[in-house]
Amino acid sequence: MIFVDACLGKPTPYTPIWMMRQAGRYLPEYMQVREQAGDFLSLCKDPQKACEVTLQPVDILGVDAAILFSDILVVPMEMGMELKFVKGEGPLFPKPIETLEDLEALSVLEAATKLEYVYETIRLIRGKLAADKALIGFCGAPWTLATYMVEGQGTKTYAKVKKLIYSNPDFMHKLLAKVTEVLKLYMERQIQSGINVAMVFDSWAAALEEDAYFEFSWNYMKEISSYLKAKYPHIPVILFPKGISGYLDRIDGEFDVFGVDWSTPLELAREKLGDKYVLQGNMEPTRLYSKTAIKEGVEKIVQTMQNNNRHIFNLGHGILPDIPVENAKYFISLAQELTKRA
Amino acid sequence: MIFVDACLGKPTPYTPIWMMRQAGRYLPEYMQVREQAGDFLSLCKDPQKACEVTLQPVDILGVDAAILFSDILVVPMEMGMELKFVKGEGPLFPKPIETLEDLEALSVLEAATKLEYVYETIRLIRGKLAADKALIGFCGAPWTLATYMVEGQGTKTYAKVKKLIYSNPDFMHKLLAKVTEVLKLYMERQIQSGINVAMVFDSWAAALEEDAYFEFSWNYMKEISSYLKAKYPHIPVILFPKGISGYLDRIDGEFDVFGVDWSTPLELAREKLGDKYVLQGNMEPTRLYSKTAIKEGVEKIVQTMQNNNRHIFNLGHGILPDIPVENAKYFISLAQELTKRA
Repeated sequence: MIFVDACLGKPTPYTPIWMMRQAGRYLPEYMQVREQAGDFLSLCKDPQKACEVTLQPVDILGVDAAILFSDILVVPMEMGMELKFVKGEGPLFPKPIETLEDLEALSVLEAATKLEYVYETIRLIRGKLAADKALIGFCGAPWTLATYMVEGQGTKTYAKVKKLIYSNPDFMHKLLAKVTEVLKLYMERQIQSGINVAMVFDSWAAALEEDAYFEFSWNYMKEISSYLKAKYPHIPVILFPKGISGYLDRIDGEFDVFGVDWSTPLELAREKLGDKYVLQGNMEPTRLYSKTAIKEGVEKIVQTMQNNNRHIFNLGHGILPDIPVENAKYFISLAQELTKRA
Repeated sequence: MIFVDACLGKPTPYTPIWMMRQAGRYLPEYMQVREQAGDFLSLCKDPQKACEVTLQPVDILGVDAAILFSDILVVPMEMGMELKFVKGEGPLFPKPIETLEDLEALSVLEAATKLEYVYETIRLIRGKLAADKALIGFCGAPWTLATYMVEGQGTKTYAKVKKLIYSNPDFMHKLLAKVTEVLKLYMERQIQSGINVAMVFDSWAAALEEDAYFEFSWNYMKEISSYLKAKYPHIPVILFPKGISGYLDRIDGEFDVFGVDWSTPLELAREKLGDKYVLQGNMEPTRLYSKTAIKEGVEKIVQTMQNNNRHIFNLGHGILPDIPVENAKYFISLAQELTKRA
């Protein structure tokens, strides 16, 4: 597979491309299945329908990889936390983790088993996906998940979780270690079910100052990737810590691809990390509103990466719900075209 | 004044300190005046009460500078836009800027004149503030203000304003140029009314990718600072673009102090900008929840800056409303104590 080769830094005929949130609301075909499923969580838990929406962008846009349709929060949910998606307000854990008893009540092995609907989805997708297209499996980073579990919902100030890390760091480390254990098992079973690439999303990386980031987030991300690479060296691991362009000097560990968000200049990432890791990214998602802006953005990225077999094309964050499908197609085909190697 | 000297890189007996949002909700004395005033905007427009809350943190905490109590959005309001503060939801412009006519209807000279209540507040404060304490005046960056004016309210995706910059950049530049003109006059009149230091807050700097940031934001910030420094070289100018740690290599222009937010490692800022600019910052605001975390944070900053007369102590973002006053006091006095020079 071109995509897997590119992740491992092997020569490929062009730079493969996919988009974060490519199975999403900008696609009318997705909205149709979503409506049939009822709510968002039901779609995540329905292997047939989740498989269907996973495959849509491959068929419609011609991306080089499919990414499992699911949500990072199914993991804390199956660890035993009630999860609601409130319309227009996002996810909510009505009973966030507050005490040691709350923490101890969370399951590890049982959670990994309860996530069977995800593994079933993966088997269905891998059975239907063209043999030359890769399937990306994923999970949220321990820090991002633990933050949701403590805050109970999205937050602007991260006040609850930060009170914890500065006043009771041991509690936070216990929680992070437990989530990390589940994620190792979860990603391992995803691999056994057929994913070709494993990705960890740290959506809330930018909530932490530098030292705290490495102590409470990066170390746990690395632990997952080391575990997976030791057992499954042929499966590339992509780590995506969003918004930490100031911390690149301290990025290390055993993984294959570093996901570059759009706020991190790609040139900076190439200088600091390009020799050690393949880079993924990082087109500004709002450029997809305009074809002129798409062309300018793709050309700049191609120029920066010097077509060097050390790059996966992607947006620098998820595709927005109101992007015209035509523009998304143009982005994909232009990137594939302009990176063709003789 | 120690504070002004430090901004200009002159030797001072210790590193002066203040806190962003120091006149704010964590102070019971502030809440009392705020309640008397009615809503937030009424407090901004009442020179007596705005003066009173400006002085509170100087008396209560012993900070080395007062910062004018006001809001960045009074500027677009006085340019002619209706502004509401909706409880629990933040500021709202019910009729955002959409057409060229909307843009042309905005006033420049008249706006600067209508802001008389701000100048009156400054005169009152300067009359009451101790002679050795500095008064900081401020405005929002053209980019941050223009974003509010186009979006109409806070936004997570910046979709409207980004559609503009990628599909109609000329319109955006016209708007930014107009806002910049008002801000030059506004800051000039603040100086004439008695402020000792001028600061520009670019709260939404991190909304833009690198090239767009310099084109649509930094260039306009620099224009304001160059204008002020040419006419009032003795007044230090502080620029604070929040969250652009990846773009430090391209920071340039004529100003005195670079405000470092907490997500930008202070060591990185010192390496890249410390010779050219005095640095302000950058304690993580949530450290103020815990005295242990305060001590650790202050010590690290003192060590990083090597007590070199090139630093203003501050938080890396505004103080949070639920910080104990006692902890804020501890932060201020510890920083003053640990930076004392023999």
